Amino acid sequence: MKEIKGGVCAAKGFMAGGIRCGIKPGNSNKKDLALIFSLKPCTAAAVFTKNKVQAACIQVSKENIARCADGKMRAVIVNSGNANACTGDEGLSAAKRMAFLASKVLEVDEREVAVASTGVIGVPLPINVIVKNINVLKASLRDDGQGHADALEAIMTTDTRKKETAFEIEIGGKTVRIGAMAKGSGMIHPDMATMLAFITTDAAISSEALDKCLRKAVNNSFNRLTVDGDTSTNDMVLIMANGEAGNEQLTTDGGHEDLKKFESALEVVCISLAKMIARDGEGATKLISVKLEGASCEKTALSLAKSVASSSLVKAACFGADANWGRVLCAMGYAGVDFSPEKTDVCFSSRAGDITVCKSGKAFSFSEEKAKQILSEEEIEIRINMNDGESIATVWGCDLTYDYVKINGDYRS
Amino acid sequence: MKEIKGGVCAAKGFMAGGIRCGIKPGNSNKKDLALIFSLKPCTAAAVFTKNKVQAACIQVSKENIARCADGKMRAVIVNSGNANACTGDEGLSAAKRMAFLASKVLEVDEREVAVASTGVIGVPLPINVIVKNINVLKASLRDDGQGHADALEAIMTTDTRKKETAFEIEIGGKTVRIGAMAKGSGMIHPDMATMLAFITTDAAISSEALDKCLRKAVNNSFNRLTVDGDTSTNDMVLIMANGEAGNEQLTTDGGHEDLKKFESALEVVCISLAKMIARDGEGATKLISVKLEGASCEKTALSLAKSVASSSLVKAACFGADANWGRVLCAMGYAGVDFSPEKTDVCFSSRAGDITVCKSGKAFSFSEEKAKQILSEEEIEIRINMNDGESIATVWGCDLTYDYVKINGDYRS
Repeated sequence: MKEIKGGVCAAKGFMAGGIRCGIKPGNSNKKDLALIFSLKPCTAAAVFTKNKVQAACIQVSKENIARCADGKMRAVIVNSGNANACTGDEGLSAAKRMAFLASKVLEVDEREVAVASTGVIGVPLPINVIVKNINVLKASLRDDGQGHADALEAIMTTDTRKKETAFEIEIGGKTVRIGAMAKGSGMIHPDMATMLAFITTDAAISSEALDKCLRKAVNNSFNRLTVDGDTSTNDMVLIMANGEAGNEQLTTDGGHEDLKKFESALEVVCISLAKMIARDGEGATKLISVKLEGASCEKTALSLAKSVASSSLVKAACFGADANWGRVLCAMGYAGVDFSPEKTDVCFSSRAGDITVCKSGKAFSFSEEKAKQILSEEEIEIRINMNDGESIATVWGCDLTYDYVKINGDYRS
Repeated sequence: MKEIKGGVCAAKGFMAGGIRCGIKPGNSNKKDLALIFSLKPCTAAAVFTKNKVQAACIQVSKENIARCADGKMRAVIVNSGNANACTGDEGLSAAKRMAFLASKVLEVDEREVAVASTGVIGVPLPINVIVKNINVLKASLRDDGQGHADALEAIMTTDTRKKETAFEIEIGGKTVRIGAMAKGSGMIHPDMATMLAFITTDAAISSEALDKCLRKAVNNSFNRLTVDGDTSTNDMVLIMANGEAGNEQLTTDGGHEDLKKFESALEVVCISLAKMIARDGEGATKLISVKLEGASCEKTALSLAKSVASSSLVKAACFGADANWGRVLCAMGYAGVDFSPEKTDVCFSSRAGDITVCKSGKAFSFSEEKAKQILSEEEIEIRINMNDGESIATVWGCDLTYDYVKINGDYRS
């Protein structure tokens, strides 16, 4: 497995582009409309937000992907700057229109196009600027270094870092590529999972197998971003596979070894993006990994780790490089699962070293100076051992900072 | 029902005091040890944190109250500056010792004393400074204006506002008083309910009736502070009733009208304290009431209101006086209960007026300037109508500000 360049254009037969059409406010020069296009029809799989309030684009994409996942998907059109959520029937028409406009210039069926939106909720989507610029968008499609970079730029909102990755693996003697990009920043808390991710691959893979691999990968990556079911109105992870690598088609029936290889690679891609999203949490200065070991079962491990990674008090302490481990135990205590505090050890770890701060549920004498050094790094691990079994879970999050408040105090202006 | 002065000393036969003994760090002059004492034995009731990690004082108080609730409770001793949580067997000994020391100077049985602590977790409680100052604490007991003020000061940590109240009502021709004080500030999120409340009354009331009234009042007040079961290691609400008002004893058997009167008064006391705690949330500049009306049942109303009041995005928007109602709907969407977004109306309200921002789940044209005015007030109401039934619930919270991060970035130093 080798990391390569090219983001969503790394896989053979995929083009991408991005432009500014004027959805993002005022005289900003920010790109706000992206397109990913496969020269060949694709199998596809997607997971969507579980929020009861769902954006219009989610409804349209769900329908289209359900219809075309089995080998007909061709493209996804994405706008930033407007979520097209809570926009009623007009919003639904606008989302359908987006798919239609893209399908026209790409000369495919409108049902073969997925639609995604991200941005402010409750404001009508200015579909006219998309109408006006759809040909420019088409013209921006490229399969070189610029195409994926433009598309990535066009899906960002409060993101401060670019989130893309690509890997190649060998399957049945053929080189298979997986490329991906994501946006997501308002992620500091379970209620802010405004994330999108688009993954392309030239693997030949059945839609059933693709769906299985995607769900597993998402469960072990994006769903461990202190997010879980608490998703926004617009969340979507979409993968399209066009088979251009020429490998024998991966299915759930045979070739389990090859499928596992693909599955693992997809998981690496998703975890890599998930960590980029956590690191770029709104206002974040630090990536915090909470690793829970020695639990009686994985469900317990995951619940405890999530509770710690979501605690505002723990996150604020990490921002201040304050080894306030009592807050770690406190957050575990209200996770809603049973455990023995008196068996629990807590350790803080980073490039600067390791330090045990709590042993058997009690204070363990440690150097405050050393702890401060460790917690001052940009990537911190909070390692908790329950000494109660063999199960492990890791959850990713970030610190809570002044800038988080600043960014969210007046997002709309 | 009339508001009166005197806090926990308002009820007949109660004295209180507070001193600095040196548990709070350094050369601070802050008081850190409080005592409430009833001249006559009391019935008592209490509710405790549901956190799996419980402070030593919780264990001691639970036992003592269980033994003496039926008419023998006499006092509660409280320290701030140290939570005596995650402190092992030594912590348990220290908590028992606190009760013992108080009982000696008060000349009562040690089991007749409840114990509470609040402050940093995982640091051994310096019991020696309590030993050294227990006589000074006893000497500070007064039933005038100073006693309750000193006790209140001594239970505060990051609190910036004093939280106490007292009311009198008439029961069976007798004047009955209920006085109370509370601390709690790290309350901005469900994971920070580090609150204590102590309530005294001179009502004659059976422990069974007292317990029933307290649970109902807590459920409709402190448990609606975006807290619910997500309580800290040290939370406690304690009420002691000494019967000095001379009313015929209230019981759950007869006199239901009088009991209801007492129950209502106690609820008013608790809601009043709960709002004070929300208003004083760490770093908070605003009290936010989320009132959910027209729900199909109370449970749904409560879940939706809590989800909105706990959303960091909603809270940050309130701080910035930004009428970003899409975040309100989004937070409802992940509350985990079923509802119809397309029936939902949202209105922002304060002293400065009312404004509807969302009608039937969609944007409702409104003046941004007027909305800004409304949201710039210190007390804001987010009023949501589900148009789906008759049930109502109100939850109290506060905004999320820079100062929250500042306070929690380095709490220990």
